[in-house]
Amino acid sequence: MDKALFELYARFVVRSGVNVQKGQTLIISSPIEAAPFARQCAAEAYAAGARDVVMRYNDEKFSRIRLEQAGLDALTDVKPWELASYMDYYDGGPSVCRLAIYAEDPEAYKGLDVAKVEKAMQARSKVLKPWSDLSMVSRIQWCVVSVPTEAWAAKVFAGQKPEDAVEKLWAAIFKATRVEGGAPEAAWEAHAEASTRRVEALNALGLAALHLEGENGTDLTVGLVDDYVFEGIPGYTPEKVRFFANVPSEEVFTAPHRSRVDGVVKSSLPYVYNGNLIEGITARFEKGVAVEVRAEKGDELLQQMMSADEGARRLGEIALVPASSPIRQSGLLYYNTLFDENAACHMAFGEGYPTCVKGGAAMSREELDAKGLNDSLIHEDIMIGTPGMNITGITADGRRVPVFKAGEWAL
Amino acid sequence: MDKALFELYARFVVRSGVNVQKGQTLIISSPIEAAPFARQCAAEAYAAGARDVVMRYNDEKFSRIRLEQAGLDALTDVKPWELASYMDYYDGGPSVCRLAIYAEDPEAYKGLDVAKVEKAMQARSKVLKPWSDLSMVSRIQWCVVSVPTEAWAAKVFAGQKPEDAVEKLWAAIFKATRVEGGAPEAAWEAHAEASTRRVEALNALGLAALHLEGENGTDLTVGLVDDYVFEGIPGYTPEKVRFFANVPSEEVFTAPHRSRVDGVVKSSLPYVYNGNLIEGITARFEKGVAVEVRAEKGDELLQQMMSADEGARRLGEIALVPASSPIRQSGLLYYNTLFDENAACHMAFGEGYPTCVKGGAAMSREELDAKGLNDSLIHEDIMIGTPGMNITGITADGRRVPVFKAGEWAL
Repeated sequence: MDKALFELYARFVVRSGVNVQKGQTLIISSPIEAAPFARQCAAEAYAAGARDVVMRYNDEKFSRIRLEQAGLDALTDVKPWELASYMDYYDGGPSVCRLAIYAEDPEAYKGLDVAKVEKAMQARSKVLKPWSDLSMVSRIQWCVVSVPTEAWAAKVFAGQKPEDAVEKLWAAIFKATRVEGGAPEAAWEAHAEASTRRVEALNALGLAALHLEGENGTDLTVGLVDDYVFEGIPGYTPEKVRFFANVPSEEVFTAPHRSRVDGVVKSSLPYVYNGNLIEGITARFEKGVAVEVRAEKGDELLQQMMSADEGARRLGEIALVPASSPIRQSGLLYYNTLFDENAACHMAFGEGYPTCVKGGAAMSREELDAKGLNDSLIHEDIMIGTPGMNITGITADGRRVPVFKAGEWAL
Repeated sequence: MDKALFELYARFVVRSGVNVQKGQTLIISSPIEAAPFARQCAAEAYAAGARDVVMRYNDEKFSRIRLEQAGLDALTDVKPWELASYMDYYDGGPSVCRLAIYAEDPEAYKGLDVAKVEKAMQARSKVLKPWSDLSMVSRIQWCVVSVPTEAWAAKVFAGQKPEDAVEKLWAAIFKATRVEGGAPEAAWEAHAEASTRRVEALNALGLAALHLEGENGTDLTVGLVDDYVFEGIPGYTPEKVRFFANVPSEEVFTAPHRSRVDGVVKSSLPYVYNGNLIEGITARFEKGVAVEVRAEKGDELLQQMMSADEGARRLGEIALVPASSPIRQSGLLYYNTLFDENAACHMAFGEGYPTCVKGGAAMSREELDAKGLNDSLIHEDIMIGTPGMNITGITADGRRVPVFKAGEWAL
């Protein structure tokens, strides 16, 4: 990989993605295979004035052994230190920020007992929720990025030599993240301005719902939360510190109303869940609930996902991504949600972002419930956009406004 | 490396070294470079009936960045979760056991501010003391082992190709740990019997002190704690679960009396401390205290070590290793205490093992103090044995008994 771009990427991720502030502690989670990049980010964080960097390595090959060999009793016994290992750095203010390096083997847990894996993941999510909630409400700066690993690259560039596949994935990542040109800050500045214009236009429309129609049979009406707010990039903490939560990010998104989604929707790209693939999802919604959900591949897994809790069958996010997105245009299937969700419009089963309700970041759970914002332990993005998708906005006063025509922005 | 020996080594380490019991949680600490071995040990632990395995990866390359870039304020601010990440698994009984995979680059921290590194290490040791104490008193089974990393192998086999150096270090480790022959259990059984015979002979002598004389100028009288107990292999927990705390282990050791060490001692091998080398140590003791200590190389580091606390200038261990030890016979300098301490007699500055006092594991700190056992945050083994060393036991009633003659057991 190009060493200069590697360093530039780390610099951009730390300085603009997380936007580490003087005196903050940066918590980095990273696969052990991504250690060189994680270390580079750590060095950048100190250079940016971080008080400290906490490195939390994970190892999916060990996790697979554990998920296979340990009993459910042990897997669901998440000790208090796991939450404390994050919250010990949080003082209620802007003391901490978070960088997640995400580079899973898409089929890391293929063949394992899906119910067992799901229960283990749920137990972990439940214990860590106070920590993940800080990101959900933009209380802290956070950023998710990816770097190639051999296992992941082998899926994206199947049949190629490992070193070639890794090299090509680096190139694709540098391109998708706008690092390739050597000036990511300027490129993201322009990108953020365009995003902000879309967001402002959508917020000004006074929408009640979006109607999605795809050439693959999707015909879904998504009612929005009361006092909806569309969000794009950048994000802001309460202290007005700017950050990019996802690198790359091509989406503009808001929250569906938990009881106002009706119709049929079909997935348009495979989805990676708990180290397995789910493909060909069809879901039928009635009054916000996915009353029928099935997948052509990985259906057992999908049903497990739906069983997480009551909110798992309802939507938490609807995100608009044009077919001209550079990730879509790359023609690659990444088997990595961070990338694939930026190749197509998507919807998320599960928790909605409080920031998608006007004033929501400061609201209680009860207030958010009253606005119609969904809650759940899960937040799983399913790609539903197609090249020919039309999306129509339906305003509170009944007007119909074209939002997407044939997969592209009509606003 | 020989794959069959690799698997056998992991099996031996887990089944005999730690001797993982059904229902226990095994906490493995490992450098990220040793992940393949750590995973193999995890799988072995589950196969042995472990309830769970907790994997704690460390990364000395990241640690170096942190020790260099973070301020002392951050480096000494060790959060409560770090201790909880171990103690959350300890229920006061035999719930947990520990495997440490130790494979440092001997000069990982070369060139860093030694006072800063020392203060960071001390702060960490202080917070983690309740956990390390569980090993010190054999309350839990524990085992320290090593596997090659490129950085370490490059020091042992300087000037050789990285893959050749790693390969040779594997072979040396398989030999030193008695895994090479394919039947480590039987080999360690015989080895443990020999160790037990020496221990029983030494404990029966009624010793008050050991007098060490080396051809390099060492002339040291080491008074022993009251009610001294020599220990060798195996170790036992209070529940009589057997374990080998070090693999390899060639030593028989006990605790000096904190106020009864006099004379001059010289180191005979380099010592790795905080990722740096210390060589050519001379220490002069008066009434237990090292009143003069200097090193030809790394003296600043040595002075830092001496400054850890009041107990750092006193001895916590005296260990006897014959010159015929297979590690000595390999002719290699390992720059790794686990190996080098089994190549030569050594003494440790700092904390003594309570188990080296009769009934000591159950004694309070005050009771141990009264027996003369030293306490400190550090426990640092300095190799002092020479091929021509003579060691004479001085009994409580004044008899002189030869223990070592010209580097070999005389008992």
